[in-house]
Amino acid sequence: MRFGSVIHILGFLMVFLSVAMVIPVPFSLYYGDQDYLALLSASGITLVCGILAFLFTRFDQELRPKEGFAIVTLGWLVFSFFGSLPFIISGYIPSFTDAFFETMSGFTTTGATILTDIEALPHGLLFWRSLTHWIGGMGIIVLSLAILPFLGVGGMQLFKAEVPGPVADKLTPRITETAKILWGVYLLLSAVETILLMLAGMNLFDALCHTFGTMATGGFSTRNASVGAYNSALIDFIIIFFMILAGTNFSLHFRFLRGDWRAYFRNVEFRFFMTIIGIALLLVGADTFRNHYSDPFEGLQKTLFQVVSILTTTGFGTADYEHWAFSSQFVLFTLMFIGGCAGSTGGGLKVVRIFILFKFVFSEIVRLLHPHAVVPVRIGRTVVPRDVMGNILGLFVLFMIIFVTGVFVMAALGLDIDSAFGAVAACLGNIGPGLGSVGPTDNYAHIPTAGKWVLAALMLMGRLEVFTVIILFSPTFWKK
Amino acid sequence: MRFGSVIHILGFLMVFLSVAMVIPVPFSLYYGDQDYLALLSASGITLVCGILAFLFTRFDQELRPKEGFAIVTLGWLVFSFFGSLPFIISGYIPSFTDAFFETMSGFTTTGATILTDIEALPHGLLFWRSLTHWIGGMGIIVLSLAILPFLGVGGMQLFKAEVPGPVADKLTPRITETAKILWGVYLLLSAVETILLMLAGMNLFDALCHTFGTMATGGFSTRNASVGAYNSALIDFIIIFFMILAGTNFSLHFRFLRGDWRAYFRNVEFRFFMTIIGIALLLVGADTFRNHYSDPFEGLQKTLFQVVSILTTTGFGTADYEHWAFSSQFVLFTLMFIGGCAGSTGGGLKVVRIFILFKFVFSEIVRLLHPHAVVPVRIGRTVVPRDVMGNILGLFVLFMIIFVTGVFVMAALGLDIDSAFGAVAACLGNIGPGLGSVGPTDNYAHIPTAGKWVLAALMLMGRLEVFTVIILFSPTFWKK
Repeated sequence: MRFGSVIHILGFLMVFLSVAMVIPVPFSLYYGDQDYLALLSASGITLVCGILAFLFTRFDQELRPKEGFAIVTLGWLVFSFFGSLPFIISGYIPSFTDAFFETMSGFTTTGATILTDIEALPHGLLFWRSLTHWIGGMGIIVLSLAILPFLGVGGMQLFKAEVPGPVADKLTPRITETAKILWGVYLLLSAVETILLMLAGMNLFDALCHTFGTMATGGFSTRNASVGAYNSALIDFIIIFFMILAGTNFSLHFRFLRGDWRAYFRNVEFRFFMTIIGIALLLVGADTFRNHYSDPFEGLQKTLFQVVSILTTTGFGTADYEHWAFSSQFVLFTLMFIGGCAGSTGGGLKVVRIFILFKFVFSEIVRLLHPHAVVPVRIGRTVVPRDVMGNILGLFVLFMIIFVTGVFVMAALGLDIDSAFGAVAACLGNIGPGLGSVGPTDNYAHIPTAGKWVLAALMLMGRLEVFTVIILFSPTFWKK
Repeated sequence: MRFGSVIHILGFLMVFLSVAMVIPVPFSLYYGDQDYLALLSASGITLVCGILAFLFTRFDQELRPKEGFAIVTLGWLVFSFFGSLPFIISGYIPSFTDAFFETMSGFTTTGATILTDIEALPHGLLFWRSLTHWIGGMGIIVLSLAILPFLGVGGMQLFKAEVPGPVADKLTPRITETAKILWGVYLLLSAVETILLMLAGMNLFDALCHTFGTMATGGFSTRNASVGAYNSALIDFIIIFFMILAGTNFSLHFRFLRGDWRAYFRNVEFRFFMTIIGIALLLVGADTFRNHYSDPFEGLQKTLFQVVSILTTTGFGTADYEHWAFSSQFVLFTLMFIGGCAGSTGGGLKVVRIFILFKFVFSEIVRLLHPHAVVPVRIGRTVVPRDVMGNILGLFVLFMIIFVTGVFVMAALGLDIDSAFGAVAACLGNIGPGLGSVGPTDNYAHIPTAGKWVLAALMLMGRLEVFTVIILFSPTFWKK
């Protein structure tokens, strides 16, 4: 492990973070809040630490996969540590555990909050909180489409060829080029959503914050009642539309914008993504249309919003689904494991992996009937290579092991079964709101300190495709 | 599909079933009950149907895997159908759904009951109910050690070479020979347990019924309070010991009896099985020793009993674990998925598969660090072949798909989340008692009719390694 290179790059990223911390300052000043002081102090501390880390280390030739894994995981940790400073310094979240949890929840685009009264926060901090989502989403897009495929993680290896940007063997130039293109798309979509939300009645501040939460599939809102506070069908449908876009592979947006109008519907994963939304809408709607909403339009608005919000792992809320039937809650719980498409900002196992797992089971059944037949798993016309198949299956098993371990720990810390299942699924899948005592109208404030650290670790693992984090615990990883 | 051969063999098995139905008659007469009439009538009906099926069909050369799959699944269905007749004819379980559920629960060695007052049943029916377990266990041993490995299902392919009996290419002579040896072991262990239970104070009737429940890892008791009714540490420990034996690969018993004294501890799966028991005992004991039992001996007795009873998928009870901490309940819930060893009468995914899944995840992590290394998964010194690995992974994914679907259906039928999770896990894993409204002191009487059929189907799928049943739904299966 070349620690020098790793710390060098982390230092560079911290400088970027310190600049980002200044962005909320104008909002703080405009609304006459005092929190700009905390933001500027935090920014200063981060800048100094970043520059020191950058200056006292040296970039050592090229990066190998090992350093790539270390930078990704440590990057999210460092961001969550320094990103929590504004909350601590301002005194609005005095506990380090709580501030770290909230910031990790932001950067991992989870959206689980320990705040009992969100609206009590001053505007600078609220903006910073939402901005952590947007920055996290930016990181994830580059990670999933440009970095992880080359490290052999993330299921996107399948689409190496489909990623926009120049095809090159060296990691760095390719990442830079791909990142620029994808960030352009991300920025464009964010701008359009902000404008639409303003046209629908939000002020600039709220529109920006909710755009950050949407495009990153994060879910932090500026309101205690989340998106439901606006009570506007127009806003709901705008956000539904952009949650779906955010849960879609960003390279499809790129191709669509370049004039390939059929890019979406030619894509197997996107079609399966739409199918899942349709099935979930039917299953949940069978309950909500009958038992909760007499007006079918309202039924569609509320049901579709919740289905899309959970499936894309955003976690915005317009209805308290804990009043819906157990079957509906269970459908939403299942969606938490599926998540968005690969190459989107969504979390979870990803739609393409679920699709491949289903096809794998079918191929095994066929193989039992025809023991000597070769039954490859295909996605579209591409055969899934053995190592990718192994990686997907390994992730699925590991995800389940971590889920079960997480639920046990949370139950041992005193959570009831529903809440433990809900909290672990919602954090590991990067959704935010879960079930039971961490449901859509609750928050994570009451979770014991140890539990908050466990959940923060689950957010990180879920966000980084699990393997990226787990690999750091392998002794051979650290060998020279 | 050669239907003639299939029906021919099913007819033969029905004749065997009709003979088995006469076995409880002496107990009915001895205790002066009237239920021997129902048993004899049911036996007569089964005999006539069996003989007709046997006479009007012809065995067509050799059996192919297709016919093997059909016979196994249809065999369990036919047994559950005819086996339910004594309950219906006697009038003690008037509903066909209930009687079928109870009998399927018996033959699949699940032990889930719809009876609200078990002790109200006459002795002949009680004996028949427990005997269905023992017959089901007999079927499973042969199935898992002699038939399924040759059909490419069940994870025991790994141990083809380890199965006792002559090595031959033809299926039939090998099955016959292996079956004889294994049934000898099964009979011997059953006889020893019966004698020990009688020495510990049970009468012959209770000793036999509880032996049937133990050796088949079934769990039907003759008492409403299950094994707890005897309130005897000696009985508890005898049953713990034999539950462990029943959850162990029967070919190990065979080798041990032949003088290979280290057979058990040389076996990787058995060591992992013991490790799981140890870990579960620690995790659950951390709660029960501290919060529920002031006497450490009683704590060990009750905790170990429940851990072994659930892990081996027996489902006998001596304590109401629903009063234990949520973390303890969750540990037991997790054990439901693991189950016994391959080649035992236990259900669940099987210990060896869980072991291989863990090793598979490790191999995937190593492969990420060394992308060009070949990292085979080993069990002991044997490399797990690719097709077996695929089969195990496929089963795991399929098991989860079926679990999720089952929970949704049960929730849609009105069960709360805990009960739906518990009922589906307990039936799919062939345990019996679950959580919530189907916990250890409850029963399945209140489940809606549709739900009972779904759970009965889950028992069958769980018992027959899922693929064996699912394959019948493949259209190509039925093609000429």
